[in-house]
Amino acid sequence: MAQTTPNHTQTVSGWAAHDPSGKITPYTFKRREKRERRYHQSPLLRICHTDLHHVKNDWGITMYPVVPGSKVTNFKVGDRAGVGCLAATCLDCEYCEDAHENYCDQVQFVYNGIFWDGSITYGGYSEFLVADHRYVVRVPESLQMDAAAPLLCAGITVFSPLKDNNLLESSGKRIGVVGLGGLGHIAVKFGKAFGHHVTVISTSPSKEKEAKNGLGADDFILSTNADQMQAKKRTLDFILDTVSAHHSLGPTLELLKVNGTLVVVGAPDKPVDLPSFPLIFGKRVVKGSMIGSIKETQEMMDVCGKHNISCDIEVVRTSEINEALHRLAKNDVKYRFVIDIAGKSSNL
Amino acid sequence: MAQTTPNHTQTVSGWAAHDPSGKITPYTFKRREKRERRYHQSPLLRICHTDLHHVKNDWGITMYPVVPGSKVTNFKVGDRAGVGCLAATCLDCEYCEDAHENYCDQVQFVYNGIFWDGSITYGGYSEFLVADHRYVVRVPESLQMDAAAPLLCAGITVFSPLKDNNLLESSGKRIGVVGLGGLGHIAVKFGKAFGHHVTVISTSPSKEKEAKNGLGADDFILSTNADQMQAKKRTLDFILDTVSAHHSLGPTLELLKVNGTLVVVGAPDKPVDLPSFPLIFGKRVVKGSMIGSIKETQEMMDVCGKHNISCDIEVVRTSEINEALHRLAKNDVKYRFVIDIAGKSSNL
Repeated sequence: MAQTTPNHTQTVSGWAAHDPSGKITPYTFKRREKRERRYHQSPLLRICHTDLHHVKNDWGITMYPVVPGSKVTNFKVGDRAGVGCLAATCLDCEYCEDAHENYCDQVQFVYNGIFWDGSITYGGYSEFLVADHRYVVRVPESLQMDAAAPLLCAGITVFSPLKDNNLLESSGKRIGVVGLGGLGHIAVKFGKAFGHHVTVISTSPSKEKEAKNGLGADDFILSTNADQMQAKKRTLDFILDTVSAHHSLGPTLELLKVNGTLVVVGAPDKPVDLPSFPLIFGKRVVKGSMIGSIKETQEMMDVCGKHNISCDIEVVRTSEINEALHRLAKNDVKYRFVIDIAGKSSNL
Repeated sequence: MAQTTPNHTQTVSGWAAHDPSGKITPYTFKRREKRERRYHQSPLLRICHTDLHHVKNDWGITMYPVVPGSKVTNFKVGDRAGVGCLAATCLDCEYCEDAHENYCDQVQFVYNGIFWDGSITYGGYSEFLVADHRYVVRVPESLQMDAAAPLLCAGITVFSPLKDNNLLESSGKRIGVVGLGGLGHIAVKFGKAFGHHVTVISTSPSKEKEAKNGLGADDFILSTNADQMQAKKRTLDFILDTVSAHHSLGPTLELLKVNGTLVVVGAPDKPVDLPSFPLIFGKRVVKGSMIGSIKETQEMMDVCGKHNISCDIEVVRTSEINEALHRLAKNDVKYRFVIDIAGKSSNL
C-alpha cells in the first residue's frame, strides 16, 4: 500500500513496519517539498504504545508500510520546535475554528493518516519530516530536547484532561493515576506541580517505590490487593486511567467519591468493561480525552518550561528500535524511549 | 432467609419470590408497628425491571423471600402520598446532609435492604407498608394515583439526570433516549415538556410510530440500521440510555457531538462494553445516575403536576403479577404495569 503523489519529490531515509509482525526495517520513501528549507539537526523521537498498536495493527487500521513516530525538529534555524501527533485537520469546522482541532472529524495524524494532498502520512522514524506550521510548537529553552520529545504526545495527553477538569487552577484535590508508564509518570509530575495529593494505582508492587521515591507520589494502591482497594473506596476526586491493555473500570470507579471523574486516555484495542453498579451508585463520570490541541500543547510546553517538567527517558539508536518496541511491550522502560535519529545526542 | 425482629408485630399479607425461578406467591410476614396508625386505602404498585432483576437474582444479591415493589399509599388521612425506592440512609454523611441521600454509602431500598432495626425490608407487593416519613413524597391532586405510581421510580430515574445536566433550565437541545420502555417513555415526555428536540433510539422498528405519534418524539433512529446510525453521527447533545440488557455503548456514543454526555440509568447485570475510540475521539462523557433524592422526587412530582405528566400504564390484579412479570421480561407492556393491591382501582 506504499503510496506517493506527484508533489512528493524528496527522498527520505526512514524506518517502517511492513506487516503485523511489527518488525521495523530501514525504508526509503518520498516526502513532499516545502517552499522553505527544512532543518533537521539531531531529530529526536519518542516511542509509545500508539506506535506499538500501529506496527502490530492492533486497531485494524494500519496502512503498511507504516513509519511511526512524532518528533522534535527545527522549523527555522535556531528555533527549538516539536511536531506532535497532528498532521492535518479540516481547518473549517467548529472544533478547528475554536482551537480544539484534535476533535475535528477529519483529523489526520503524523503517521498512518491521509494528508491534504491525498498522500499517506509517514511519521518521524525518519531523517526528517515536513510539517505544516499550524501543527508545530515551540520548546522552551529550559528543557532538554530529548526529554521534551515525549511531552508532544504523552505530556499533552495527560495535561489536557487535567486542565479540562480544572486541576490547573485548583489545588489540594485527591487525584489518582492508574498505570505508571510513559503517560502515568508525567501525570504524577503534573499532579504534584499543581499542588494535588497524588495516588498511583498499579498492578505492580515494584512501582510503589518508584512512584513515591522517584516521582514524589503521596500514596500507592496495589490494584490486585482487594483490602487496599476496599480501604480506599470513595476517597478520590479524580482519576486518570492511562492503561492501554484491556481491563474493567469497575474497581477503579469505586475509588472515586460520588460525582468523581475518571478520564480514559489509553486506547485498548478491545472495549473496556463498564459495570453499571459502581457507575450509577456513585453517580460517577467517565470521560474520554485524546491528546490535545496545538494551542493546549504550546500551553503545556510553557508550563513544563516554567515548572521544569520533562520526561524520564532512555535514548536509543535507530539500530535499537525493534528492541525498544519489544521492551515497551513488556513495560520494560522508565518511562519513554527516545530515538536519536541523527546519532548525535549528547546522552549517548 | 426469612427474618423478623422483635419489634415486628403486625401481620401483613404480601406476595414474594422465594427462589431464582422468580415465581411470585402469596406470603404472610411481619412488619414493625408505627406509633401512628397507617392508612392503606387502594395502594397501587408499579412493576419494573428492578423487580425482575431481584426475583431472578440477576445481580446475585437477593435475600429470599423477596417482596418487591414501591408503592403509593397514604401517610395521613386525606393526603396523597407515595413511597419510592429508598427505605433508609445513614442520615449523617455529606450526601444525606446535602439532600443527595440516594448516594449515601449506607443506602437501603424498600425491598431486599436492611432497615435501621436490622430487619430485611419487604416492599410494596403487600397490603400495606410502613415507611419513615423522610422517604415519603406528596402526589399532586392533578395526577391520577395509579399513573403517578411509576413516577416514584421510573420518573425520578430519568428526571434526575435531566435536571443534573441543566436540561430543565435550557431548551432546544438535541437529546436522545435509548430504549422506549417504562423509563424511556417518561424521558420522552419530560424532554418534550422542557422544550427539547427528542430522538428515540431503539432496536424495534415498531417503536417509531409509538415514539412519534404516541409520545410526540421528533425523530427516531433504528439502532440496528447502520446507515441511519452513520447519518446521525455527532448530532446529539445528550443521550439517556435506559436499556437494562447487556449492550455496547460504542455505536450510541458516536451519535453524540464532541463533549456530549450519555447518562446510563439502566442496570444490566453484566458490564456494558465501552470501546475507547468513540469515547476519546469525541471527548465524550458517560455518567451514571441512580434514581434521585427525596427532595428531587418531590420536585419531579410537582413538575409532573404542573405539566400534567404521568406514566402510560396497564393496571393488573394481584393474581396477574407473574403474568405481568413474564410480559415485562418480553417488553410486552406500554409502558408500566401497576398492581391494584386492594382491588379497588377505578381502572379495573
